Amino acid sequence: MKLLLEEILHNKLLWLLVFVPVVFGAQQFTHDAHTLLFVLSVLAIVPLAALLSHATESVAAKTGDAVGGLLNATLGNLTELVIALTALRAGQYVLVKASLAGAIVTNTLFMLGASLLLGGLKYHVQEYNRASARMQASLLFLATVALLIPSAVSQADSVAGAAFTQKLSVGLSLLLIVAYGLGMLYSLKTHPELFASADSGEGGHTPWPMGLALATLAGVTVLVALVSEIFVESVQKAAEAFGMTPAFVGFIVVALVGGAAEMASAFSGARKNRLDLSVGIALGSASQIALFVAPVLVLLSYVLGPAPMDLQFWPGAVVMMLIATMTASMVTNGGRSAWFVGVLLLMVYAIFAMTLYLLPPRVA
Amino acid sequence: MKLLLEEILHNKLLWLLVFVPVVFGAQQFTHDAHTLLFVLSVLAIVPLAALLSHATESVAAKTGDAVGGLLNATLGNLTELVIALTALRAGQYVLVKASLAGAIVTNTLFMLGASLLLGGLKYHVQEYNRASARMQASLLFLATVALLIPSAVSQADSVAGAAFTQKLSVGLSLLLIVAYGLGMLYSLKTHPELFASADSGEGGHTPWPMGLALATLAGVTVLVALVSEIFVESVQKAAEAFGMTPAFVGFIVVALVGGAAEMASAFSGARKNRLDLSVGIALGSASQIALFVAPVLVLLSYVLGPAPMDLQFWPGAVVMMLIATMTASMVTNGGRSAWFVGVLLLMVYAIFAMTLYLLPPRVA
Amino acid sequence: MKLLLEEILHNKLLWLLVFVPVVFGAQQFTHDAHTLLFVLSVLAIVPLAALLSHATESVAAKTGDAVGGLLNATLGNLTELVIALTALRAGQYVLVKASLAGAIVTNTLFMLGASLLLGGLKYHVQEYNRASARMQASLLFLATVALLIPSAVSQADSVAGAAFTQKLSVGLSLLLIVAYGLGMLYSLKTHPELFASADSGEGGHTPWPMGLALATLAGVTVLVALVSEIFVESVQKAAEAFGMTPAFVGFIVVALVGGAAEMASAFSGARKNRLDLSVGIALGSASQIALFVAPVLVLLSYVLGPAPMDLQFWPGAVVMMLIATMTASMVTNGGRSAWFVGVLLLMVYAIFAMTLYLLPPRVA
Repeated sequence: MKLLLEEILHNKLLWLLVFVPVVFGAQQFTHDAHTLLFVLSVLAIVPLAALLSHATESVAAKTGDAVGGLLNATLGNLTELVIALTALRAGQYVLVKASLAGAIVTNTLFMLGASLLLGGLKYHVQEYNRASARMQASLLFLATVALLIPSAVSQADSVAGAAFTQKLSVGLSLLLIVAYGLGMLYSLKTHPELFASADSGEGGHTPWPMGLALATLAGVTVLVALVSEIFVESVQKAAEAFGMTPAFVGFIVVALVGGAAEMASAFSGARKNRLDLSVGIALGSASQIALFVAPVLVLLSYVLGPAPMDLQFWPGAVVMMLIATMTASMVTNGGRSAWFVGVLLLMVYAIFAMTLYLLPPRVA
Repeated sequence: MKLLLEEILHNKLLWLLVFVPVVFGAQQFTHDAHTLLFVLSVLAIVPLAALLSHATESVAAKTGDAVGGLLNATLGNLTELVIALTALRAGQYVLVKASLAGAIVTNTLFMLGASLLLGGLKYHVQEYNRASARMQASLLFLATVALLIPSAVSQADSVAGAAFTQKLSVGLSLLLIVAYGLGMLYSLKTHPELFASADSGEGGHTPWPMGLALATLAGVTVLVALVSEIFVESVQKAAEAFGMTPAFVGFIVVALVGGAAEMASAFSGARKNRLDLSVGIALGSASQIALFVAPVLVLLSYVLGPAPMDLQFWPGAVVMMLIATMTASMVTNGGRSAWFVGVLLLMVYAIFAMTLYLLPPRVA
Repeated sequence: MKLLLEEILHNKLLWLLVFVPVVFGAQQFTHDAHTLLFVLSVLAIVPLAALLSHATESVAAKTGDAVGGLLNATLGNLTELVIALTALRAGQYVLVKASLAGAIVTNTLFMLGASLLLGGLKYHVQEYNRASARMQASLLFLATVALLIPSAVSQADSVAGAAFTQKLSVGLSLLLIVAYGLGMLYSLKTHPELFASADSGEGGHTPWPMGLALATLAGVTVLVALVSEIFVESVQKAAEAFGMTPAFVGFIVVALVGGAAEMASAFSGARKNRLDLSVGIALGSASQIALFVAPVLVLLSYVLGPAPMDLQFWPGAVVMMLIATMTASMVTNGGRSAWFVGVLLLMVYAIFAMTLYLLPPRVA
């Protein structure tokens, strides 16, 4: 407990934890103040996500390389998973899909771009492990292909009906999870030396003892789930109040909130000239969402959702995911970076954000 | 003749030659047993293709580097060409196109992926000639662009009619054949040193004497043509019996049958740590089909077919060819491989195969 | 004045200046001879563009690196800008857009491809600065993404109306100009060493004195504007006489005329084994059109045009721009070139030109 308090005193982000009770209180009194509830829930999710990520790393550090890597890989996007599950149970499939596509695009373009820019403003030229970045970019490309095929085929082919898309989505989900598992076997077991420098201590915190870490993991997951419910309920109404389109909310706002904790780690790595860490977090997180979170949600929708969810995305989202992946693969190909490389990625992100912001609201 | 028998005894694949008389016999008795005829014709084509490829290499070895390379390059996909010609004469243009697109995708993803996986299971990391792989990938990309333009433009533009597509297809076919010829001039005459290690003795067989090789070439081509007729007649009906869609049959089954002989060579090269050979066979065969077999079929359709054939593919096939090419170019960019790289390529192939398998049957 | 005459005597292209008075004279007498006026105006624009480019370089050489680079970067495509402005004022938006897309494709595929081919015919293998080529290719890719998003989204989404496209186009134009400015800051100020060899004296002329250069710049710009008016008026009618489609004229003819002067420099650089120069001119010019000329025209259309112009291109043009960018990025990735690489680029260009030439005339 003392360690937990120390961590909170040390990490300024965790001061935001005060908003966790505030948001629950506010919900009791003002059930209709959507904008207020939205802002408070965002402020509460961010520090919870940071705690979750620290607890996961602590458990991982104690359990040894292989199991730890596995844990990090499966729980690393727990916040995104919990938010998406809440939206799934509420039947908000458009929001779920937009947030999945948005998380991939945001991690690939914004998190990576801002890391490269922040690092580049401090260091003239930065180098990083090309092999590792290439592997992440390839996995991400594979996942994007899997996600775009159902949309491309049913686009090209009006005969293909909902039953086809449904069956295909389940099959692809299973394939993606297998690919994800094999990817972990590759990077953790058979060829870890190719990913060497990316693994050297995520963020440099002292790990917590096992009991504290597990208790935090369990407790905070429940809190995130509860706050997510308020967040998912209020986000659409609040967005209307701010004049945002649903597409913009799902793609940009939810993705930024869900990824806030990882962004903090990625940015601080870049400022310490440890770009391998930043690139690994950004691309690793994106490919984890595509290869693990998305297919798990499809499979869970059969158990938890009001109806099965498929992998067919809005065509514009598919184009954006594909461009994001291609841009990241192009940019990380060289293994060197300067500030302008970050600007290029952020510019592509700004193009997408602007398009979604201006898009007429009927489409999501 | 003794050499031919020796080869048959030596190469286990050639034991399948016994199915050649069996399939002709079976056709006399059971004209309607499509499934049986289909299985028998597949079992007969595979060893014939292996013989054809050995005879071509023998002629090539005797005629010196330049003419030999030319022969290898033009006759290397003779099996695919003969099967496609049979389907062309039968007016089955959907099958012809599906088998062309399928051969490109299968060679690029399945043949290359399985080679890298088989090699990677034996060797920790394998290296190969980047320059050569890049050149093959570029040629393949060029060909894919040529094949996608007619479809993309008539997709984008409903005004463009059949006459436009027809004229464009003939023009593009001539351009592709010119590009193919210049590519051979480049790799065989002006810059052979860039392709050095890929040429070192395909498969390591002892070449046959000229007379035997030419006689085998002529005789086996006739046999392949005769068996192909049974194959093309029975494949669609048999597919229905197996519950396969026509798209799946053309794309996957025909492509795997037509390429079986080359696959045997590519896989054995990978197991001997000669990845240059495997990459050369896989990408070279794919670009040969796109740059030589496809345009030749378009031009021959004016002479042999019931009506002219164009280069306009089903949009889904175009997407798959483009993704296959991009994946291959991404993956071969580094010149190094480990088992997971092969898995990535096979996963993309599995995604395509699953999509085609589940696709409702009206579309091909 | 003596220097100007010397330059004219030295440079054979400038003998074509004699067509400047001829075209004005011809216009007085034969207002309807569109084909004649078209040919004469082309012959007059080419040497004027060459003079313009020489004058810009002279001013740049006198004003020091940073301002000079800025001038070169903004005035380098002055000819294209003036021609497009003339078409804009005449309300010929289809021609403006076709010429913008065409200039990007022509510079990326034809100018680069012909440079690599011409260089490769003289030198066995040529090397150039990969980092610089990659940066140019990335900038170009960014610009292409910005140009394709409005078309892709309104394609995917029939709800999005003209108002959306209009607002989005203005926003994207501002973003592109910011990206262009930051790109100059990067290549001229903060990281010029990465672009080292590409900057070493464009073309090797002796710079003119400031007064002469500025006077030439002003005078020739006026002449180009006047001749452009004749060119824009006559080009469509002349094209019909030659049996060309409007798409072909805008994409190919206008782009080749507007870029003639730069092509002369790029080709002569390649023949002198200075590929950095050629690659820099070709890709730099393409990205300048996409990042600077196109957005400036969108913004100026609010002031000068009969109606605002947007950035929504014909889908076929978007596909071509994207393929051109991908091809260039693939090809320049290695930093080495031989003649066949040039052939590959020219083949892709020939595929596009053939498609546009055969396209039924209703579409542009």
